[in-house]
Amino acid sequence: MHGKENYKILQKDSNTAARAGILTTAHGQIETPVFMPVGTAGAVKGITPYHLKETGATIILANTYHLFLRPGVDAIEKIGGIHKFMAWEGPILTDSGGYQVFSLSPLVKIDEEGVEFASHIDGAKFYLNAEITTQAQNRLGVDIAMCFDQCTAFGAEPEEVAKAVDRSIRWAQRCKEVHANENQLLFSIVQGGIDLDLREKCALSLVKTGFDGYAIGGLSVGEGHENMVNTVNHTTKFLPEDKPRYLMGVGMPKDIVAAVRNGVDMFDCVLPTRNGRNAYAFTWNGPVHLRNNAHIGDSEPIEAGCDCYACKNFTKGAIRHFINYNEMLGPILVSLHNLRFYQRLMAKIRQTIKEGNFDNWSKEFIFGD
Amino acid sequence: MHGKENYKILQKDSNTAARAGILTTAHGQIETPVFMPVGTAGAVKGITPYHLKETGATIILANTYHLFLRPGVDAIEKIGGIHKFMAWEGPILTDSGGYQVFSLSPLVKIDEEGVEFASHIDGAKFYLNAEITTQAQNRLGVDIAMCFDQCTAFGAEPEEVAKAVDRSIRWAQRCKEVHANENQLLFSIVQGGIDLDLREKCALSLVKTGFDGYAIGGLSVGEGHENMVNTVNHTTKFLPEDKPRYLMGVGMPKDIVAAVRNGVDMFDCVLPTRNGRNAYAFTWNGPVHLRNNAHIGDSEPIEAGCDCYACKNFTKGAIRHFINYNEMLGPILVSLHNLRFYQRLMAKIRQTIKEGNFDNWSKEFIFGD
Repeated sequence: MHGKENYKILQKDSNTAARAGILTTAHGQIETPVFMPVGTAGAVKGITPYHLKETGATIILANTYHLFLRPGVDAIEKIGGIHKFMAWEGPILTDSGGYQVFSLSPLVKIDEEGVEFASHIDGAKFYLNAEITTQAQNRLGVDIAMCFDQCTAFGAEPEEVAKAVDRSIRWAQRCKEVHANENQLLFSIVQGGIDLDLREKCALSLVKTGFDGYAIGGLSVGEGHENMVNTVNHTTKFLPEDKPRYLMGVGMPKDIVAAVRNGVDMFDCVLPTRNGRNAYAFTWNGPVHLRNNAHIGDSEPIEAGCDCYACKNFTKGAIRHFINYNEMLGPILVSLHNLRFYQRLMAKIRQTIKEGNFDNWSKEFIFGD
Repeated sequence: MHGKENYKILQKDSNTAARAGILTTAHGQIETPVFMPVGTAGAVKGITPYHLKETGATIILANTYHLFLRPGVDAIEKIGGIHKFMAWEGPILTDSGGYQVFSLSPLVKIDEEGVEFASHIDGAKFYLNAEITTQAQNRLGVDIAMCFDQCTAFGAEPEEVAKAVDRSIRWAQRCKEVHANENQLLFSIVQGGIDLDLREKCALSLVKTGFDGYAIGGLSVGEGHENMVNTVNHTTKFLPEDKPRYLMGVGMPKDIVAAVRNGVDMFDCVLPTRNGRNAYAFTWNGPVHLRNNAHIGDSEPIEAGCDCYACKNFTKGAIRHFINYNEMLGPILVSLHNLRFYQRLMAKIRQTIKEGNFDNWSKEFIFGD
């Protein structure tokens, strides 16, 4: 666990930076590259843990920021910790709250010590800093805690980005110092926008301090696929081979495959469930828009051959009807399909890496029709 | 199937009119007394068939009116019938639409031939009558079809109720004449408000025509528990012993137990799911209101000893949090608990009838603290 060797590479791709590996956590081992469904406030939207597990998910994500606001760390501790709270026996990772403070809170006062913010729910004032979020994650009992960091918006002034990088480095050091849960891995987050020099500096500083894993944060905020890939490519060069790398909040299937080519091991994203709720289904042949009139009376599943719960049991015609009727089951079924699609994608990535065919497969996936 | 002997009494209670039996349908046998979860528009709100089956449901209900409007009988037929549409392999019963026309439609013109109504969705004009709803149910492929009937509101003028009874009798005859699905049972519906003479007249007329089962309709519309029980008690006396009796849209647990005492075999009601969505959980010790602040950090399940998915996996503290956070999982979990509670109630009813203890048990349940 914390401070030990927890990541083992099983197979390195010879043509790309991709690798297949095993990450060991207190609640089990996970195969990487891995996709983590997002349960922001303690639940993946509309999905019972039974069905979530059935999609092939091995590790899930929750947000310290949301759980800190409601129901609060005390409440979750009284309930018996985050695994009992979420009814998820496998590994759980929590984001530290840095990104949410930056993206959700209406009023923010940031200084070296920490962040004063207003709850996005009721405006009530809260305070977060490196120590508070680390101790909160220690007490929640998550398997992987993230360091508190400062994000900047895409297009922020270079000076502001540089300041945020320096601060994130110092905050990460404070997180490591106060971290006190030996069963919990602590990952730090590389910031720096799309400034490659800042990314390099941030990565080198964090690696010098030493963490159980390294995340790349502050991307997928409007910089576009090319900028994202270039930044990831440059950043991973300065991260140690023997530690897992996690690209936060990314993304579309092609983004994920491109990031794996550049050596990323872990991903999370709300797209499978958010798009699912909007009747948008991912398939190997591109998106299926289930509101489309063409699906009235359609007796086919969302994707032929898919082994998800929705495709094994329901027709596009029925799912379209549920969505158009505002029946909750519609969004639930498309979300389940999308969550399974992402797991099938990751399984394909792991398989092609192991079989030595990842370079060709991934090029075809990214650049093919 | 249709016209044959499909109901077998296993045990009659010696002190009450209760009976335990087996009803045979094209999609399997069901033990009665039975509770049927409501999937109005083809889905039990928020509940996948996997979890629905896990609650112990053996037969479920859908509404011809809703499915006739959207997606339409043609669409469901193209999809492969209602069982494939709903992904439910067990028996399905559909209400005929009579009650929905009466309760949901903003504009209604009723005459002897049928009903012209405006869709509650978009105001579009539709026409339903005995022949159309029967043929629709034939084509949907449900296991139990209901005759088209005319409901009256509680407090309607006696003359109006009498007219609706006569019309419902004639419409039921037309339904039987046009019914053309040998794999489908056809139940007629006794109307008559709380007028015992009208109920008697209606029951005797329908029995003379002869159906596979008899429903008692037009109750649970504001008449109160006592009126409901008296009406059921009087009506079942005029129904044949060897056919199943179905009390439509009822109700609270005590209503169901009282109706079983008076010889009713089948029930449907939206309360388990509707109350579930409103954070109201049924338990043997009365309701649990999950929004209550007392449940913050509560590490206990909704009901100790309950074997439902929610109670086996989640705490009241977590469910309260999901509900207060508008996480879909909250309403889903309380609905699952309530659906299981109703199935446990029916199992207890069947068990006490078989063991000869129903009279005592049911009195205690209805009148005890």
